[in-house]
Amino acid sequence: MAAYHIFKPDDAKAFADKHSGLFGEHSQLTAAEFGDGNLNLVFRVQNDKGSSLIVKQALPYARCVGESWPLTTDRARIEAEVLEQHGRVCPQHTVEVLHFDAELSAILLEDLKAYQILRHELIAGKQFKHLAGQMATYMAQSLFYSSDFYLSGPAKKAAVSRLLNPELCLITEDLFFSDPYCNHERNNIHSAILADAQKLWHDQALQAEVASLKADFLSKPQALLHGDLHSGSIFIKEDNCKVIDAEFGFYGPIGFDLGSLIGNLLLNYVACPGRFAQPQQAAEQEQYLLQQVSTLWQEFSQQFSQLMASECRDAALQNSHYQQQFLQQVLADSLGYAGCELIRRTVGLAHVADLDSISNASLRAQAEQRALALGRQLILQRTGLANISQVLNLVQYLQ
Amino acid sequence: MAAYHIFKPDDAKAFADKHSGLFGEHSQLTAAEFGDGNLNLVFRVQNDKGSSLIVKQALPYARCVGESWPLTTDRARIEAEVLEQHGRVCPQHTVEVLHFDAELSAILLEDLKAYQILRHELIAGKQFKHLAGQMATYMAQSLFYSSDFYLSGPAKKAAVSRLLNPELCLITEDLFFSDPYCNHERNNIHSAILADAQKLWHDQALQAEVASLKADFLSKPQALLHGDLHSGSIFIKEDNCKVIDAEFGFYGPIGFDLGSLIGNLLLNYVACPGRFAQPQQAAEQEQYLLQQVSTLWQEFSQQFSQLMASECRDAALQNSHYQQQFLQQVLADSLGYAGCELIRRTVGLAHVADLDSISNASLRAQAEQRALALGRQLILQRTGLANISQVLNLVQYLQ
Repeated sequence: MAAYHIFKPDDAKAFADKHSGLFGEHSQLTAAEFGDGNLNLVFRVQNDKGSSLIVKQALPYARCVGESWPLTTDRARIEAEVLEQHGRVCPQHTVEVLHFDAELSAILLEDLKAYQILRHELIAGKQFKHLAGQMATYMAQSLFYSSDFYLSGPAKKAAVSRLLNPELCLITEDLFFSDPYCNHERNNIHSAILADAQKLWHDQALQAEVASLKADFLSKPQALLHGDLHSGSIFIKEDNCKVIDAEFGFYGPIGFDLGSLIGNLLLNYVACPGRFAQPQQAAEQEQYLLQQVSTLWQEFSQQFSQLMASECRDAALQNSHYQQQFLQQVLADSLGYAGCELIRRTVGLAHVADLDSISNASLRAQAEQRALALGRQLILQRTGLANISQVLNLVQYLQ
Repeated sequence: MAAYHIFKPDDAKAFADKHSGLFGEHSQLTAAEFGDGNLNLVFRVQNDKGSSLIVKQALPYARCVGESWPLTTDRARIEAEVLEQHGRVCPQHTVEVLHFDAELSAILLEDLKAYQILRHELIAGKQFKHLAGQMATYMAQSLFYSSDFYLSGPAKKAAVSRLLNPELCLITEDLFFSDPYCNHERNNIHSAILADAQKLWHDQALQAEVASLKADFLSKPQALLHGDLHSGSIFIKEDNCKVIDAEFGFYGPIGFDLGSLIGNLLLNYVACPGRFAQPQQAAEQEQYLLQQVSTLWQEFSQQFSQLMASECRDAALQNSHYQQQFLQQVLADSLGYAGCELIRRTVGLAHVADLDSISNASLRAQAEQRALALGRQLILQRTGLANISQVLNLVQYLQ
């Protein structure tokens, strides 16, 4: 095993060559780094016949900030294990891990060349009918089979312990649940909505609910989450989508993954009037997004219910009343986390292009205000919303 | 370090002698095994001047069943660490650990010779005014300082991981939450209440709530619990009490420790009419027990509130609305777990002497029926009971 060193393209080439049968002895390999993430190097290695693989290496610091923010490279181990576990139960929607090297903190992955990043596609106004249904399947499968419904107490505890992921969880604990609700220097607030952001710092009722959501994030290891399921972590093409970037994975509340994705669909939703010159275009895209939110929950809850009914291995948790209550709580949690995502992407450190790319400053401010208002209502009303129709009513009412 | 071997009295003597300065070179030591527990050897080692210490060694099997039920001796490490952690924040009510040897799975402990086992004292009708107040302090301190209010995410995750305790948790998962609600061969049901026990096996509404309590036991690591806080784990004397036997310790829901103790006070309570020949005596003891339940919750919630207000180190969790909601949830959880304790001690594998020692079979059956009825109501009504007065009303109403 080689000692850790930061990969150059030639290292990535050698790594891919060594750990895959794809390339063959006499292939001419090329490698280029193209990562735009903040924490890692990402290389595409390809041969002269057009076959290619991805080499992802964790850097010992957060790339966006520089070497001053050290970050464990152990996250590569976590990412590899999360993707492997999710890939075992839902291979069709999880990027494939071909090899992982702990010493080098490097993962060899299938190249999703035929896919595009969902966020870019949504911003461009593209619509994929299969998105919500497939992501619902990914979450139902990956979350159910890592939950107490399926794993014994001892097996789950061992998995929880292997995937504690304290350093990356801490980033979420701070950026997601704390910074937006105080005047933190890491926040990134456009001046046009400063007054709206400041209201968050004094909103005791909202902060009480966010505290509860944070406490669950800290201490509710229901299932093995992806942990960062925004629309930049989903690759999509005409007939399929696959999840990447699982380095934030850990055992947490099931609603966190659902809420992250719902939040990102709604971030795109609130930005529609600012992005489309034609109101009709905006309305169509909004309609598409709401329908995806609805399908996402309906498909997830149906598939998860079915798994609970047929595959639950803990006799005490087979009770159907309990399972219904459980799903109701997952819905409430999901809406709460979706609300947090709307807020933190608007005023926190890490913004999303859905909002930031709106060129008209006034329209952007309106979209951002809608994101904050919608986020707030989702968090405050989450336990009172009995089903996804009521959620859609709330979203549309707030327009 | 010596390899593991099962201690004889001479080994216990040598172990105590080596790891304490108490005895001195020329003391004549004697040692005798006196454990009545199910999982361990317990020796008292004393010198000719009357000084004494306790040596507790974990056996590689559950003693009550025999060598056919293997059980990790690693539980000695867990017990030592839980007692040390609790002792650090609440030394006055935690038995002192003088030495721990991992290889031998042996712990050297202070001898609580001046103390009696609380269960025996309660059965004998003794009353200790300080009991509830001191145990409230023990729980407020030990639970607060191991919670997310005080520990950072990474520090807490590391502690959770060290103290997963999967094997002993599994015993609780089965005996506490599963067996009593089905016709399990491990159950121990007196024939006079068989019909009452059978109702539990078909009570879907109750089972749904027990499932929820079990799910929290599995996946709500709020704080480092004692994990087995019944009245046999509490030693008491005129002016003090101390907690022993922490081998079931792990990070779980705060209400579990509170509920275990409340449940044990109520087990003694329902047995009063069967134990005392004089109704007046029974009524006085009942009054004492209810007042202890009330003080336990009031003192705990007051002290825990104060700690949350003054010592909380997570800014997001400092919100006072949240802290109130949190305590309300702890009360509901506590009542639920108290209800489970009442039920499982009546129909499950491990009974309590409070009930079993009632010599009149008809009175014993009445007490057991009251335990089941009260347990059921506490579980079903737990989220609707707003304060401890309402709880006491429920208890008295059910008489």
